[in-house]
Amino acid sequence: MDHVPDQTINRLPIYLRCLSQARAVGIAVVNSLQLAQMAGTNAAQVRKDLSYLGELGTRGVGYDVEGLIAHVSDVLGLTEKRRVAIVGYGRLGGALHGYRGLADRGFDIVAVFDDDPEKVGRPAGGLTVAPVSALERDLRDLDVEIAILTTPTSAAQEVAERIAAAGVHAIMNFTNVRLELPEGVKVRPVDLSVELQVLSFYLARSS
Amino acid sequence: MDHVPDQTINRLPIYLRCLSQARAVGIAVVNSLQLAQMAGTNAAQVRKDLSYLGELGTRGVGYDVEGLIAHVSDVLGLTEKRRVAIVGYGRLGGALHGYRGLADRGFDIVAVFDDDPEKVGRPAGGLTVAPVSALERDLRDLDVEIAILTTPTSAAQEVAERIAAAGVHAIMNFTNVRLELPEGVKVRPVDLSVELQVLSFYLARSS
Repeated sequence: MDHVPDQTINRLPIYLRCLSQARAVGIAVVNSLQLAQMAGTNAAQVRKDLSYLGELGTRGVGYDVEGLIAHVSDVLGLTEKRRVAIVGYGRLGGALHGYRGLADRGFDIVAVFDDDPEKVGRPAGGLTVAPVSALERDLRDLDVEIAILTTPTSAAQEVAERIAAAGVHAIMNFTNVRLELPEGVKVRPVDLSVELQVLSFYLARSS
Repeated sequence: MDHVPDQTINRLPIYLRCLSQARAVGIAVVNSLQLAQMAGTNAAQVRKDLSYLGELGTRGVGYDVEGLIAHVSDVLGLTEKRRVAIVGYGRLGGALHGYRGLADRGFDIVAVFDDDPEKVGRPAGGLTVAPVSALERDLRDLDVEIAILTTPTSAAQEVAERIAAAGVHAIMNFTNVRLELPEGVKVRPVDLSVELQVLSFYLARSS
């Protein structure tokens, strides 16, 4: 499994969502073309991506939806809950905390941090906003595995270093800072404007 | 330009961000390997993607950063401002409204809508929350080109149909509903849990 290309890994959550949607409408078997159409790719790509996970489909029939959901979930490590912290509890941090899509998929927000004295100690969706000064201690005590970084730009690099030093090896980076962190820390940059830029391309072409 | 593959289009905003970062640190020329490393892909992919845009680089030298930024921006239709509305002004809608990355890249939020009487009429970052009942009229009057859909799941399909009927042909869909809309309406689904699922994969592999 170590040789699965990053591009394939990036598509697995998308296949998983499509499969869940198919299951929700009562579809028990899908073929690669159907899955490709749902996922916005092509059938050859689907077959190639899924081939990395083993011999999964039946030629001429397709993939068992339930079985494939279980398998992809397992590969993605989604069969266990992941403990997540949000660092930077402004509007975006708050919105992510309230975003049902995370809890639904097994991501438990177990801590939220901010360094604004006005916010620290306040209730926040079943939690209490913790001070950034307690970051290292709390991340360790709570066994946090993934940090969502939503601090202001100016604090991002320093806070990310502290998160990494506290043993958290996965960071979802919503700031526009290119983080420099020790090897072994996986960072996923999220730029909400990317999708708008893709839409802009189609608008520019069609006008 | 009509034959540019969707996958390439999806990567253009990422190259654009990398090029802007390179420019910000004073780099005037990048080669395909450098750009690939920044973008998390490989050099052959970069060369192939950029080849769709014309003869851009100089063999053995690389790409002129400033020139490539201008060219990719032009292809993505980013040289003109895009007028955007946020439909559903809950926490996520509010966070997106306050997200500086959008305005910085030429996306002007010109209207925000909600159907909660408590919110309608309230000030919202220089705008006033408009009622969803005024959707069609306001989208037309304000020449909105892109709608960001952040309604509750239950309202998503109906509101999206009204957005499309009002002549808005690009929707960034933050709900988990698979929208069924007339051909010609481009929908980009955004699922914030995808990046967490990718991180989960790496955590599962490393443990």
